[in-house]
Amino acid sequence: MIYITRRESFNAAHKLARPDWSDEENTAVFGKCANPNWHGHNYQLFVTVKGEVNPETGFLVDLKWLKQIINQYVIDKIDHKNLNLDVDFMQGVLASTENLAIAIWNILNPMIAEGGAQLHSIKLYETDNNYVEYFG
Amino acid sequence: MIYITRRESFNAAHKLARPDWSDEENTAVFGKCANPNWHGHNYQLFVTVKGEVNPETGFLVDLKWLKQIINQYVIDKIDHKNLNLDVDFMQGVLASTENLAIAIWNILNPMIAEGGAQLHSIKLYETDNNYVEYFG
Amino acid sequence: MIYITRRESFNAAHKLARPDWSDEENTAVFGKCANPNWHGHNYQLFVTVKGEVNPETGFLVDLKWLKQIINQYVIDKIDHKNLNLDVDFMQGVLASTENLAIAIWNILNPMIAEGGAQLHSIKLYETDNNYVEYFG
Amino acid sequence: MIYITRRESFNAAHKLARPDWSDEENTAVFGKCANPNWHGHNYQLFVTVKGEVNPETGFLVDLKWLKQIINQYVIDKIDHKNLNLDVDFMQGVLASTENLAIAIWNILNPMIAEGGAQLHSIKLYETDNNYVEYFG
Amino acid sequence: MIYITRRESFNAAHKLARPDWSDEENTAVFGKCANPNWHGHNYQLFVTVKGEVNPETGFLVDLKWLKQIINQYVIDKIDHKNLNLDVDFMQGVLASTENLAIAIWNILNPMIAEGGAQLHSIKLYETDNNYVEYFG
Amino acid sequence: MIYITRRESFNAAHKLARPDWSDEENTAVFGKCANPNWHGHNYQLFVTVKGEVNPETGFLVDLKWLKQIINQYVIDKIDHKNLNLDVDFMQGVLASTENLAIAIWNILNPMIAEGGAQLHSIKLYETDNNYVEYFG
Repeated sequence: MIYITRRESFNAAHKLARPDWSDEENTAVFGKCANPNWHGHNYQLFVTVKGEVNPETGFLVDLKWLKQIINQYVIDKIDHKNLNLDVDFMQGVLASTENLAIAIWNILNPMIAEGGAQLHSIKLYETDNNYVEYFG
Repeated sequence: MIYITRRESFNAAHKLARPDWSDEENTAVFGKCANPNWHGHNYQLFVTVKGEVNPETGFLVDLKWLKQIINQYVIDKIDHKNLNLDVDFMQGVLASTENLAIAIWNILNPMIAEGGAQLHSIKLYETDNNYVEYFG
Repeated sequence: MIYITRRESFNAAHKLARPDWSDEENTAVFGKCANPNWHGHNYQLFVTVKGEVNPETGFLVDLKWLKQIINQYVIDKIDHKNLNLDVDFMQGVLASTENLAIAIWNILNPMIAEGGAQLHSIKLYETDNNYVEYFG
Repeated sequence: MIYITRRESFNAAHKLARPDWSDEENTAVFGKCANPNWHGHNYQLFVTVKGEVNPETGFLVDLKWLKQIINQYVIDKIDHKNLNLDVDFMQGVLASTENLAIAIWNILNPMIAEGGAQLHSIKLYETDNNYVEYFG
Repeated sequence: MIYITRRESFNAAHKLARPDWSDEENTAVFGKCANPNWHGHNYQLFVTVKGEVNPETGFLVDLKWLKQIINQYVIDKIDHKNLNLDVDFMQGVLASTENLAIAIWNILNPMIAEGGAQLHSIKLYETDNNYVEYFG
Repeated sequence: MIYITRRESFNAAHKLARPDWSDEENTAVFGKCANPNWHGHNYQLFVTVKGEVNPETGFLVDLKWLKQIINQYVIDKIDHKNLNLDVDFMQGVLASTENLAIAIWNILNPMIAEGGAQLHSIKLYETDNNYVEYFG
């Protein structure tokens, strides 16, 4: 069993605020992340897959393929977007790093399984000081 | 003459779009940066000042002071904010990295001169791949 | 189960030397790290906690709280300090990165449990080339 | 049980191409990595060992020793080398990051066991965007 | 006058060796960089242009355009290539970082002038520890 | 004219405190950097030299030589040392980053001139957030 990781980046706006709470309640819980006019981040996404090395190619998976599905099904839907307003798979949940990592797992997990490997983890940096990891 | 640089970080939302242009015109010029619902970045700001070393302290300037004025007059006004909507000194100009660097120069330049040093440059990273420098 | 990590930094002096050994013995075992007049590092500390996402907030834990307890109970006691002389929880052990990581675990583990999450790991960089991880 | 990691770097040339395939077949599978005239990378190698802290030294292992065996048995054989042509332990396999990580594990694993610790993982970065991990 | 910088990356093989010298002479001067079977690097290229901010767009230059010409005229010709064998504009000179930076300047300088800005510098990292800068 | 930069690292202890001031005066001016028991840093040193490319080698200077003199005359004297107590060329001045950068310039400047190049700048990082540059 070997593990391979691909890093991709995207930029997005978001806010942490429940629509059923007042601005005061949201600020009390989420601090400056609740700014009604949004803020944003340069996110970094690390997708780790695991499996056996294919002796014919020396590869676990073809990284060009992994890069392509990450970009088509994830990055293109969130890059230069508003996570709260523009992203269908983030509707109905708070736009936290935790929830975004879980949503990305749910998108990529069946696709990577179809490609013959196994998704191991989603690691998502919101800033250089904070990141989330999800293992399913 | 010696140069000393202090790095600070902030997160903000913005879009590149002229209010006097249509969405189509803005997208034609600014691409995905014109997304009407905003996007955002983890900006990094490098403030470089120059002058003589004070032989009594071995310092060009007290970095605690430099950090304090950068935070009070710049970071606190843009961190977790929307550069287009929330920031008084960005009203009336496009929220580009170029214009933000120039605006930060204009704020800090007289304050650093009052503190006995000279502002040398503002360097502002929008992403790991793009940065702007302004020398006045 | 989701994992979230917070990074904090501190600067400290230390030496690797047993008080019951001579300078020669210490240098033979610890090399230049045994310099009697100390040396120092910019340490980086990564604290990883795990648990369930709170559906009300989208958070595993409030990062402002996590940052606050790391700073109050760990960083404020070791930043700009001498690990051998100034830090009560490092008395009686060698000031190695291993021992410091274990000591930080012992401080934070009960506090994070009280806060409703679970400490997963302490990762401590002494330099860009060396780091220690402890999982309890 | 504690884990300690040492980072080392090396530069090497390689290509991804099976000698029993034509250039067209290799390019179809490996893309620009199959360039017959080679390309190359600044690799980063992270070697993680685990075990108990020695109470006499505060160390899991002596990092000077770990650095020395990594350099003598791995780095000196691959740094400024061609992985396909110059490296005995890569003969007969494709020069992929996966295969190189496994080969490095196989070299270091018995040596670290002899030194009284346990090899936990080999992490090998080919670029800032791709890395492989192997746990034996 | 404002300065904007775009970073791009590429991977290439090279060796430092004069064809009119013996292997012994080349090794005496260039050390392990003269390995006849090549080695390689993950290069990082920083292209800095300068000029006035266009008040209509808030831009010095359109970074999409800058990125496009760097990729079309430079990166596509050197990425995953052998600098000594595959790159027309490096024929007849040693494949040093210095010579590569100068060659990239000579390619981009007239194109950036045609685009209405001015090339300020080419900064080229061969490794994290070494880089070259050229200002024309 | 071309510029080439070599990065080296070192770890050292220091404090910012005048021996002719009381602890209270030192703390009033230098804050936690005046801790009598020292603190320390992982410093990063960037040495930039300039000159013409030698057409015979494609080099401005031989980086092995540059690395060797930086290590012999600077790094070996300050790495794993106490800047206030152990370093002859820092006696009589405050152990600030400014003064250390100037002292390193004064050591390397004549040696690099003898080697046929010209020292352009000393850039010295004390932390990721602070650095000093000196151009003579």
